[in-house]
Amino acid sequence: MDYRLYYSPGACSMAVHVVLEEIGAPFALHEVSVARAENRQASYLAINPKGFVPVLEISGEPQILTELPAILAFLAKRHPEAGLLPQTSAIDEARVFEWLAWLAGWVHGVGYGGIWRPERFSAEDPSAHEALRANGRRVVQEAYKKIEHMLGDGRAWAVPSGYSVVDPFLFVLYGWGAKIGMPMRAQCPAWTSLSARMLERPAVRRVLAREGIAIE
Amino acid sequence: MDYRLYYSPGACSMAVHVVLEEIGAPFALHEVSVARAENRQASYLAINPKGFVPVLEISGEPQILTELPAILAFLAKRHPEAGLLPQTSAIDEARVFEWLAWLAGWVHGVGYGGIWRPERFSAEDPSAHEALRANGRRVVQEAYKKIEHMLGDGRAWAVPSGYSVVDPFLFVLYGWGAKIGMPMRAQCPAWTSLSARMLERPAVRRVLAREGIAIE
Ligand SMILES: N[C@@H](CCC(=O)N[C@@H](CS)C(=O)NCC(=O)O)C(=O)O
Ligand SMILES: N[C@@H](CCC(=O)N[C@@H](CS)C(=O)NCC(=O)O)C(=O)O
Repeated sequence: MDYRLYYSPGACSMAVHVVLEEIGAPFALHEVSVARAENRQASYLAINPKGFVPVLEISGEPQILTELPAILAFLAKRHPEAGLLPQTSAIDEARVFEWLAWLAGWVHGVGYGGIWRPERFSAEDPSAHEALRANGRRVVQEAYKKIEHMLGDGRAWAVPSGYSVVDPFLFVLYGWGAKIGMPMRAQCPAWTSLSARMLERPAVRRVLAREGIAIE
Repeated sequence: MDYRLYYSPGACSMAVHVVLEEIGAPFALHEVSVARAENRQASYLAINPKGFVPVLEISGEPQILTELPAILAFLAKRHPEAGLLPQTSAIDEARVFEWLAWLAGWVHGVGYGGIWRPERFSAEDPSAHEALRANGRRVVQEAYKKIEHMLGDGRAWAVPSGYSVVDPFLFVLYGWGAKIGMPMRAQCPAWTSLSARMLERPAVRRVLAREGIAIE
């Protein structure tokens, strides 16, 4: 085994799962269900004190790797033959990191963090949670408009130079939009097309089947 | 001019300013004072609709580059001779991205975001702001313990293999700790040593003088 991925079905770790399948290197999976709060159990905190998925174990490397953008960049770098990072120029590569930082820090962190994990922002005072949820929803809605606008210029993938590690993350976020009740097909046609292209990829189909997730 | 940096004195953009000085490529500065809310003015939103600093303009590239981790990674990549990213292995490089993602998304985003920008998480309901500030302070305090613990193993810089773009960001966060009243010298001796090493660097001295910032 080259890698072991700690994941929760349908979580942002699914983007790493897709990338591992795209690369084709041997990997093992370890499920840590966020829905069942397994990521808060002592046995998992002993592995990742941050209590989040994804975590990547790398054969020969004593320390785990955390943080979705770092894991995605690492896998893309280490397996250049998979073509998951633009090789064209430093600026094309930087566009990948720009997407990842914004999607992870703002759309996922502030947006979905507010909706699904208001306690991250107000651990001691649950009376603030309703305001946090509403604000998270507003952040997600504005961000989704912006994403649709960017994808709407005719590009096939997030970074115009080609398929990259951003696309599996966008695909997960597309599914999350539907999950919180956003009319994705009606409001985000360009993003819906990108997701349809993702669904044609054998790597993506294998991951959805294995995690038991449906994204349409 | 190869680059133009939009910055606010003492903000996270100061890490980019240091990196530009380290690299030595010709650059211009454009001040956008966050304290005076210049980042919310229409003239700046026309440049960066996100309303944040840092923004990097790159000569010959029509679109600005945003997101601190992406800007730092881009400059380090494009100027390998400056030695700001480990060249040793993909995993050493990944440690840089892991630090950047955590510092930007969690320590800055959730921690300082809660303390200084509670409206990001609860735009419509100011009654939640006190709880957000208190939570942000708790997040920063826990994160600072963790950072001190990591730096306390004898390494000279954030990534053991050498000085990298993480260190200027850590240096900014060191100054922010003092700013919110944390006893940095007493509680974070290893981090204080790292910051003292930063203060010996000519690039850092030039930046502090130019931005009018004191970090001790
Ligand atoms: N900064 C982390 C955040 C990852 C994250 O938020 N993961 C979610 C799943 S999508 C999680 O583990 N949530 C568990 C919880 O909040 O308790 C990263 O980029 O990896
Ligand atoms: N995700 C952005 C966040 C940058 C950020 O929060 N910058 C602060 C200054 S340190 C800012 O512009 N704040 C202005 C505001 O919140 O209105 C990045 O990583 O570049």
